[in-house]
Amino acid sequence: MEPTLNPESGFLRFRIDFAYDGTNFSGWARQPGLRTVQSDIESALTDLTRQNVELTVAGRTDAGVHATAQVAHFDLPERDKFGKEWDCNDLEYRLNRMLEEDIRIAKIILAPPHFHARFSALRRRYIYKIADGKRQVEPLRRLDIVPWYRELNMEKMNQASTLVLGEHDFATFCKTGGAGTTIRRLEIFQWRRLDDGTLQADVVADAFCYSMVRNLVGAAVRVGEGRFNPEWMATLLANKTRVSESLVFPARGLTLIAVDYPADSELKARAEQTSRRRDEE
Amino acid sequence: MEPTLNPESGFLRFRIDFAYDGTNFSGWARQPGLRTVQSDIESALTDLTRQNVELTVAGRTDAGVHATAQVAHFDLPERDKFGKEWDCNDLEYRLNRMLEEDIRIAKIILAPPHFHARFSALRRRYIYKIADGKRQVEPLRRLDIVPWYRELNMEKMNQASTLVLGEHDFATFCKTGGAGTTIRRLEIFQWRRLDDGTLQADVVADAFCYSMVRNLVGAAVRVGEGRFNPEWMATLLANKTRVSESLVFPARGLTLIAVDYPADSELKARAEQTSRRRDEE
Repeated sequence: MEPTLNPESGFLRFRIDFAYDGTNFSGWARQPGLRTVQSDIESALTDLTRQNVELTVAGRTDAGVHATAQVAHFDLPERDKFGKEWDCNDLEYRLNRMLEEDIRIAKIILAPPHFHARFSALRRRYIYKIADGKRQVEPLRRLDIVPWYRELNMEKMNQASTLVLGEHDFATFCKTGGAGTTIRRLEIFQWRRLDDGTLQADVVADAFCYSMVRNLVGAAVRVGEGRFNPEWMATLLANKTRVSESLVFPARGLTLIAVDYPADSELKARAEQTSRRRDEE
Repeated sequence: MEPTLNPESGFLRFRIDFAYDGTNFSGWARQPGLRTVQSDIESALTDLTRQNVELTVAGRTDAGVHATAQVAHFDLPERDKFGKEWDCNDLEYRLNRMLEEDIRIAKIILAPPHFHARFSALRRRYIYKIADGKRQVEPLRRLDIVPWYRELNMEKMNQASTLVLGEHDFATFCKTGGAGTTIRRLEIFQWRRLDDGTLQADVVADAFCYSMVRNLVGAAVRVGEGRFNPEWMATLLANKTRVSESLVFPARGLTLIAVDYPADSELKARAEQTSRRRDEE
């Protein structure tokens, strides 16, 4: 599929930045009869603008996955039905009044030329949070933290996680229908303890395939529990055989915290480069 | 009502410390057909111990109010049905497995002599959180923060809040059935901005009457909006006439964060003192 580098003539492209608690959504993507983030925002925007709005998102999160800084774009005619220019602040304000509190719109702006929420993105940044051992998940903080009854050895997890950094075929950790490449460049995969003892993974890649972070986290946890040596992680990666479902960690612990884009002046070059490459997710 | 200073002979008293997200509870107190914190914990403890367990709590929170550090006590016979001694760690562990994740038991211990969760308490500490003006409530942090669209002047709120400190008849701010005193000693009522811009009130008193914090917060907000001068707060207090329902701020922003008790050696004296005084809540 060729990315749409520019909206059709006569259309304006808008960039929308937003956050959501994924708990009560069947993921990002529109699905008939289900509440999804895409359908909630698209319905509200369609009502507000009286235009048929479609969102293109940077990271299509799975059911139960959260985002503190998701990015999407949508295209609108240059003027509204009354011939007036669009007011981004007003759209943003009214959208937040219409949406439930588990989605909040941070900002709507006119996108720079050649901006594409998905194809322009340089990398996606996720975090994954675990309360291991005897650490309790504070009820008011439970939405994005997964309890794990065993104590985890962070040093071993970091040894294992380092072994899969770089550009590799991540087929082992990808749930795919078989189509598309599973080559990704994993830039950061690192564990640390927050002040309250919560174990957090910082996971950054140019792009992720389906359930990749949750499989990587599951594998690192098996090492942290002492079931496997850190080197097992490298063996898994080299196998390129999809691992068992049992490695997949719950969606609830996963949050998209940032999407990086190049400077506006480099968007054109980036679009040309991406359109020649693999299908990014 | 005379407080039960000591459990009946042959019974042991246990202190239980716990936290909850009040969102999905009809408050603390048992009510037929409703999910309450008391009934969830009592049912689980009754199942576990095969004894009819009744909890006495330090702060009977209203529907929607949260607690990060609530305290209660309950009494059990010295030995279980099999003649074995109670194992607090085991009770705590099994209770957490039975309860839903919006209640977490932090600790169960054998209470010191003369301990009474309600009557021994020296003071209760609450916080109230508001995201005012254009500050957004992050979806994953929304459980205990109330959005307020107007920008609030913190300095004026603090001027107003200072005027009601000390021991007063708080009838203006109490929703009562008419019985019992409304005299309380308000030790701290102070506003500050957290790092993320959230406005937080720290509210500490020997005890609170029903909806007192939420009325105090509502009054301070009216001052912060500029509708009234700070001195209005003192006038309200002096009136001793129950203010309109419109002042009551939502339960969601309110969290019990601590209950202070005297040193174990002073519990006996404290119990004797409290039993001569007003009905504490």
